Amino acid sequence: MTTHRFVPNSFHNVIGSLPSALHIADGDTVVTETLDAAGYDKHDINRISGPNPMNGPIFVEGAEPGDSLKVEILSMVPTRDTGFTRNMVASNVVDPQDVRTLPASERVIWKIDREALTTRLAEPVAGLEDFTLPLSPMIGCFGVAPSLGQAISTATSGEFGGNMDYRLLGPGTTVWFPISAPGALFFLGDCHAVQGDGEIVGTGIETTFEVTVRLSVGKKRIIWPRGETADDIFTIGNARPLDQALQHATSEMLRWLGSDYGLDKTAASHLLGQVVRYDVGNVFDPAYTMACRVSKSWLKRR
Amino acid sequence: MTTHRFVPNSFHNVIGSLPSALHIADGDTVVTETLDAAGYDKHDINRISGPNPMNGPIFVEGAEPGDSLKVEILSMVPTRDTGFTRNMVASNVVDPQDVRTLPASERVIWKIDREALTTRLAEPVAGLEDFTLPLSPMIGCFGVAPSLGQAISTATSGEFGGNMDYRLLGPGTTVWFPISAPGALFFLGDCHAVQGDGEIVGTGIETTFEVTVRLSVGKKRIIWPRGETADDIFTIGNARPLDQALQHATSEMLRWLGSDYGLDKTAASHLLGQVVRYDVGNVFDPAYTMACRVSKSWLKRR
Amino acid sequence: MTTHRFVPNSFHNVIGSLPSALHIADGDTVVTETLDAAGYDKHDINRISGPNPMNGPIFVEGAEPGDSLKVEILSMVPTRDTGFTRNMVASNVVDPQDVRTLPASERVIWKIDREALTTRLAEPVAGLEDFTLPLSPMIGCFGVAPSLGQAISTATSGEFGGNMDYRLLGPGTTVWFPISAPGALFFLGDCHAVQGDGEIVGTGIETTFEVTVRLSVGKKRIIWPRGETADDIFTIGNARPLDQALQHATSEMLRWLGSDYGLDKTAASHLLGQVVRYDVGNVFDPAYTMACRVSKSWLKRR
Amino acid sequence: MTTHRFVPNSFHNVIGSLPSALHIADGDTVVTETLDAAGYDKHDINRISGPNPMNGPIFVEGAEPGDSLKVEILSMVPTRDTGFTRNMVASNVVDPQDVRTLPASERVIWKIDREALTTRLAEPVAGLEDFTLPLSPMIGCFGVAPSLGQAISTATSGEFGGNMDYRLLGPGTTVWFPISAPGALFFLGDCHAVQGDGEIVGTGIETTFEVTVRLSVGKKRIIWPRGETADDIFTIGNARPLDQALQHATSEMLRWLGSDYGLDKTAASHLLGQVVRYDVGNVFDPAYTMACRVSKSWLKRR
Repeated sequence: MTTHRFVPNSFHNVIGSLPSALHIADGDTVVTETLDAAGYDKHDINRISGPNPMNGPIFVEGAEPGDSLKVEILSMVPTRDTGFTRNMVASNVVDPQDVRTLPASERVIWKIDREALTTRLAEPVAGLEDFTLPLSPMIGCFGVAPSLGQAISTATSGEFGGNMDYRLLGPGTTVWFPISAPGALFFLGDCHAVQGDGEIVGTGIETTFEVTVRLSVGKKRIIWPRGETADDIFTIGNARPLDQALQHATSEMLRWLGSDYGLDKTAASHLLGQVVRYDVGNVFDPAYTMACRVSKSWLKRR
Repeated sequence: MTTHRFVPNSFHNVIGSLPSALHIADGDTVVTETLDAAGYDKHDINRISGPNPMNGPIFVEGAEPGDSLKVEILSMVPTRDTGFTRNMVASNVVDPQDVRTLPASERVIWKIDREALTTRLAEPVAGLEDFTLPLSPMIGCFGVAPSLGQAISTATSGEFGGNMDYRLLGPGTTVWFPISAPGALFFLGDCHAVQGDGEIVGTGIETTFEVTVRLSVGKKRIIWPRGETADDIFTIGNARPLDQALQHATSEMLRWLGSDYGLDKTAASHLLGQVVRYDVGNVFDPAYTMACRVSKSWLKRR
Repeated sequence: MTTHRFVPNSFHNVIGSLPSALHIADGDTVVTETLDAAGYDKHDINRISGPNPMNGPIFVEGAEPGDSLKVEILSMVPTRDTGFTRNMVASNVVDPQDVRTLPASERVIWKIDREALTTRLAEPVAGLEDFTLPLSPMIGCFGVAPSLGQAISTATSGEFGGNMDYRLLGPGTTVWFPISAPGALFFLGDCHAVQGDGEIVGTGIETTFEVTVRLSVGKKRIIWPRGETADDIFTIGNARPLDQALQHATSEMLRWLGSDYGLDKTAASHLLGQVVRYDVGNVFDPAYTMACRVSKSWLKRR
Repeated sequence: MTTHRFVPNSFHNVIGSLPSALHIADGDTVVTETLDAAGYDKHDINRISGPNPMNGPIFVEGAEPGDSLKVEILSMVPTRDTGFTRNMVASNVVDPQDVRTLPASERVIWKIDREALTTRLAEPVAGLEDFTLPLSPMIGCFGVAPSLGQAISTATSGEFGGNMDYRLLGPGTTVWFPISAPGALFFLGDCHAVQGDGEIVGTGIETTFEVTVRLSVGKKRIIWPRGETADDIFTIGNARPLDQALQHATSEMLRWLGSDYGLDKTAASHLLGQVVRYDVGNVFDPAYTMACRVSKSWLKRR
């Protein structure tokens, strides 16, 4: 297994069937430095405009349509002392009649303490004088080339992954994406130092990271992204409204519980009915994200 | 402060402006035994048909429209050795094309061990042989008479509360409801021994409880239900789609953070943007439920 | 068959199981004068506050739960020379980020010419100097007592009818409602001189009418309101989002085409697939309204 | 102005920034023969797999991002004696619990009489023995390359157009699309002989056409597709749920009424509030389509 240090020459605002920028073997590890969501690098130099510039695509040998790409997020190291957010909740997450009460959203800088692994607003805000947050790094946007040769904006998401902004997609988590193109064509970027559920101000704390991932090909057909942490397994649905994202995630979980955990629809229903957890990813983008999560303590892999 | 033991003569399938069954002073405590969601009591005798029969209404002296009713859930003691669930996920929580793959839903019995405070399926199901769950009691349906003299089915929910099926609504939690009728007219019932997010099989583990609540009048105007646990504060929105429930809950949280925690829209946006948690209540009923939750560790009450 | 002139002593802001104000035989005709949506009568005297005060309930002999109430709208005669509207599209019918661009909504008066049967703004608006509309009367809100003894605000709608605001619900149209309470308990009010699809400013041209309806009991079980004009049959679904309202209306049409027109699911799918029309009723209220409409030219009643 | 006969060598399942297949001047006319939605030509020979193969892209000289492409649909002549449909309503247009009652959907052939300009089922269906429909040709899927270099499946739609399946998009109608790529890069295909609202069986009557369009560059910035028939103007929103598609279409109509018809938000609200019509396009695809339509009889172009 080789470890590749991947330094992109160019970045992309779409996830799609573009010429590969790196060619790796199944199971190789990749270390790469990401830009922030607006296209600035660790030196705060603008490299490309937004949204969410991607490093990639990475061609994984042996990956074929119908397979799944296993992405182990091994580490995320912040590489800059600042991040940015928007400072106002988005107009689509409040009651329509309340939109008029919201001041215009502005860009705000956060300080990142890379030793203490904390972050705080650069300019204090009344009522939040002590608001210092531990870093909780996550990848906002990653995935593989979608079907039909499509190339889809990194502002949105779908079966192929994309801009899901789900908090659990950080170090220690493994994710699987359904492969539609030869080589899978993996992209990643848009990493966050911290983010609440929903990315409801339209950003997490957007900054640059050195990300290390291991990429492997699974010979299992899946439809929506799946993931695993130390404690849980989860599936992800991306759609609007959230109801539909929840349907996608639940249907995918039923398939997974059936094929890998020996639970038919009835057993899976008993399990999910009493222990399922739903987590909200992005509710800011064209497609919203919902995760369906189950504690591994209830599961026995066959 | 008096403690009332409330033994209803009749039960109700609506929450509304009905003649009060109990009259209490502001701050009094009420102990009452609830039926299960199908109208069976602790002796498994049917007392009324479903949905979700309510004990109540309880008239609280001094409660006026525009006030809020504070409900402290002091204890929930299971009173029966059995509960029931449905055994199949509902057709509205899977992809429409997958509905055909679901067997018909049936009623299934669970054993409740009231000493160990655990529950398990009465008839084992393949793959779930060791599926014994700790009890995690919660009130599925409670609230106060809605506005305009309405009387609304306990199968749904709204600003007045109702069938929200949110896991955190159990012992130790305090909830506030917006009062629309003199005396508030409080109802409760439909308690669950355990329930996953969403109540996606259409039930939790439905059984009977002895519930103890303390009811007090707050002179604060709220629009949607609010709550507090040992760790968190939360607001609740009830609507379809989930997107709209999320809007209601977020708007209510912005109002609360502004009035009680000294956070203007910008400060509240910074807080929510990076630390908010959204929890899914019911996604089975006509109105879905979403909670917007914030850890109290970030808050200073003014 | 008797014709009753019904002069209510009181009006209602809910549709529900209230004591009946008029008792009629199956097939009788009722003539009654309605208030406008804000509770003003034909003399512009306020009789009750809004929303949408109802005349009723009318008890129809022989009507039992499981039956349907046939309502023939025989005539609607305007009884006042003025109506009112709001003057701004609602915040929920534009893109959330555009809400800030909308001025606050105000109440505006329209002149009604009861000889010419036209209406125009009392105060001219730039760009609409010649905006004179022919009257196109319709009943905004009507229906029967819902199930379970519920009483539901006239600001919304459901299986029982209610505030549907659908343009075709005017003179010459027949509507059927599913009956849940003995006597059906029919209510009507909230009539409009004109209204575009969706009631997107939150009102039609709200005024008072003398309405004549004939009420008869049908021994057919239906789930959602159905209707018939000279040209078409239609079914109505009430829910949010519109997608769900459309599902209700389509499911009801499939049932109707099966039971009364001899079309199995395949034949009905061919018909609807190529000739169905969907009409938008209310998209302002808590529940939205969608009608599924088919030209009678394609149908042969069995 | 030149007329080009465009015979594609290849077809595309995406609309995006692909190499142009034809280069024309601003104002030129193009005549081209389309495949059916499944990729079969007028000789019933399969040329490519689905979904919805496109002829194009056509590069229009002078078209720049920020402009709009005017597409006049001059004629649509059917070129085959058969079309096909699915024979069952889609699972997403009925109530979820009703999905189980629907037989599996099958492909069915229709006969097309190109002299009489009518169509009927090749195999009669009970209850529809006389079901002969006049042809009402329309383009199901057309549009221009989307922003950011995206390439998007012809199974869906967006600001750039795409698979909108709106009945009024036929001969005599003019449509404008917002241009995001140099040359606009216009695609079209997926024509229907007839189609009901919503394309609720997942198809119209899918067949091949010779389509004639004139393409011109407008120096006006628009956000969503706009159109004009002999009688009406309309705007189109594409999104899920329908509520959001309606918001997009309404917001675009407000912009149009303001810029071209001298109606400020208040005047436009009065107009739309009383005369707007909403038409349902596709409710089968990932994005649904809603049109906001106004009769030209009420409008004076400035």
